[in-house]
Amino acid sequence: MRTIQSHAHPYTVEEFADVAAAVDAAREGPEPHFLVDAAVHDLFRPVLAERLPAARLVLVEASEEAKSYGALEPVFLDLLARGLKRSGALVVIGGGVLQDAGCFIASVLARGIRWSLLPTTLLAQADSCIGSKSSINIGSFKNQLGTFYPPHRVLLVPAFLDTLPADEIRSGLGEVIKLQLLAGEAGFRELLADLEGFAAADATARRELLARWVGRSMDVKQPVIEADEFDRDRRLLLNYGHTFGHAFESVTHYGIPHGIAVVLGMLTATHVSARLGMVPEAHAAELSRLLEPWHRPFAARLGPVATADLLAALARDKKNTATGLTCILTRGFGRMEKVGLSAGQVAAEVLPTLARLVETGFTG
Amino acid sequence: MRTIQSHAHPYTVEEFADVAAAVDAAREGPEPHFLVDAAVHDLFRPVLAERLPAARLVLVEASEEAKSYGALEPVFLDLLARGLKRSGALVVIGGGVLQDAGCFIASVLARGIRWSLLPTTLLAQADSCIGSKSSINIGSFKNQLGTFYPPHRVLLVPAFLDTLPADEIRSGLGEVIKLQLLAGEAGFRELLADLEGFAAADATARRELLARWVGRSMDVKQPVIEADEFDRDRRLLLNYGHTFGHAFESVTHYGIPHGIAVVLGMLTATHVSARLGMVPEAHAAELSRLLEPWHRPFAARLGPVATADLLAALARDKKNTATGLTCILTRGFGRMEKVGLSAGQVAAEVLPTLARLVETGFTG
Repeated sequence: MRTIQSHAHPYTVEEFADVAAAVDAAREGPEPHFLVDAAVHDLFRPVLAERLPAARLVLVEASEEAKSYGALEPVFLDLLARGLKRSGALVVIGGGVLQDAGCFIASVLARGIRWSLLPTTLLAQADSCIGSKSSINIGSFKNQLGTFYPPHRVLLVPAFLDTLPADEIRSGLGEVIKLQLLAGEAGFRELLADLEGFAAADATARRELLARWVGRSMDVKQPVIEADEFDRDRRLLLNYGHTFGHAFESVTHYGIPHGIAVVLGMLTATHVSARLGMVPEAHAAELSRLLEPWHRPFAARLGPVATADLLAALARDKKNTATGLTCILTRGFGRMEKVGLSAGQVAAEVLPTLARLVETGFTG
Repeated sequence: MRTIQSHAHPYTVEEFADVAAAVDAAREGPEPHFLVDAAVHDLFRPVLAERLPAARLVLVEASEEAKSYGALEPVFLDLLARGLKRSGALVVIGGGVLQDAGCFIASVLARGIRWSLLPTTLLAQADSCIGSKSSINIGSFKNQLGTFYPPHRVLLVPAFLDTLPADEIRSGLGEVIKLQLLAGEAGFRELLADLEGFAAADATARRELLARWVGRSMDVKQPVIEADEFDRDRRLLLNYGHTFGHAFESVTHYGIPHGIAVVLGMLTATHVSARLGMVPEAHAAELSRLLEPWHRPFAARLGPVATADLLAALARDKKNTATGLTCILTRGFGRMEKVGLSAGQVAAEVLPTLARLVETGFTG
């Protein structure tokens, strides 16, 4: 069991042998309400149906639209009508969308109620479930609203990952790879070596491998979020790959899974770093080669996109100021830096790099 | 200048000679956006119009509906469309509704942006502007959503109070009276003596009197909110009068101004305390007599209300558990206590007391 410090309250991360054991643990204490991804509820119906009373259960179809301010209003009302109040608790079961929705709801309902999270995707287990953040869309503004409010308990069940499609696993691995690149060269190479046998491994070996790298990811992320929960300094480095990644998600209308967009974003940041002389070209070329299996064939979806549209998407990023671009660049493994690029640098260095990467499918 | 500690950031409370000076001070730093009560903007049009650029100004008609989750969506969108982002700031000018809306918006926009508050009502200046809280309605659920997120600066302008109708002043005085009752007997009697000449005083004397009691109110509230910002323990005593007060507001569809409902709520709590033997009947009777000028003639609005409706309103309070009632009762001046009353006690002690008070117009 891991305990994570936060401004709001310390919280625990525990691993459970199966879904039933985790849900039973989450039901302890005052009778909780449940906010559950409808697809997860379908997949695990026998074990969930007998444990989640219909009177306190709200199902949500997970989609980008579901985590919008407007779409959450009926969810709030449903939970309130079912009697959730300040003294109650919310158990959230699902991936990133459910986590965002559940975190936002728990943080603003009665100014903050108790909540627990059972993350069901690799992305949520390895990365987003710790760190306190929610991101909510409003109108056409993506991820512009949110709160810092960690769950009181995170309950990990490796078995949830068995049901994920391959691209969903690769999306989660994108953030796992990012965290190891931030930590240094050794962990990154160890991860890639481990992953080489992944496709051929049996279900048990895969589950063990993923559970191990979920833990290793938290080992990297935990000290960063504890030292800088509010994203003022060190934690910004966790956005490595995200400035460009968010733009790639946006221009393809979320046609590229988040973690895969992050892989493409990290490659972009690395090639921009090389162009600025921060890192050898050979480093960027090696990363392009090593990471190619983890984004193929999604890079091609950027082919039809005009660079002007990419630039416009970058300008909409909430971290960018009125002029220029703030992004995380690199001087090599484990040596990421926050860099402010002027509008001139964006035109002269970023855009040509982006155009070349898109044209070559990010291979160099 | 006063500095208040908070989980989020310390913040200052400063007094300014006039509206122009305060707005000029609030405009310092990065170019802020402005969220302003439309009626205040009308009243102070010359001084505000030349200082608040239309491109960064959003006006809100203050009403109970305006601080609902749904009504805030277009306000969020308007501010975002006008370019407010993480690096920006929001200046909020208005009373309680604007404060609730502005606090909620500032706290969830980009997970928290810089904001300043110019409270324009006595209620907001003397009480709500410090303490970090926002309260937002959703559907038919009143004040069920919210956040803890203080402004970075509170800018007080006594001149704003010159324009308030008499009932609005009395509403603010309700919370001023509450804070002095919580502090002890001496301050309460000093306040009542001061207020005796209020009606006959000239504008300058009134303004000075109110500014002095705004400061005295903060003297009482500041140590409480600093010690217990999240309402877990000591701060709950600030809810003195509120459990019953909220019910009175609700059953009259907000026909009783908040602070006046709090006065009626304190009288109810005191008479219930007397009935339970916590305080002499004479104390309750004296308070009824002393506070009568500060709630007249609003008590009469409760005359047509059935006790069953009052009970239902009490049961909806977010602080109440499934059965029974939690409220702040009193053993005398400065000796308030959180008390849990069983459903039986509510039926046997609270309801008869309420029925009698409503019948006698809260005079005894």
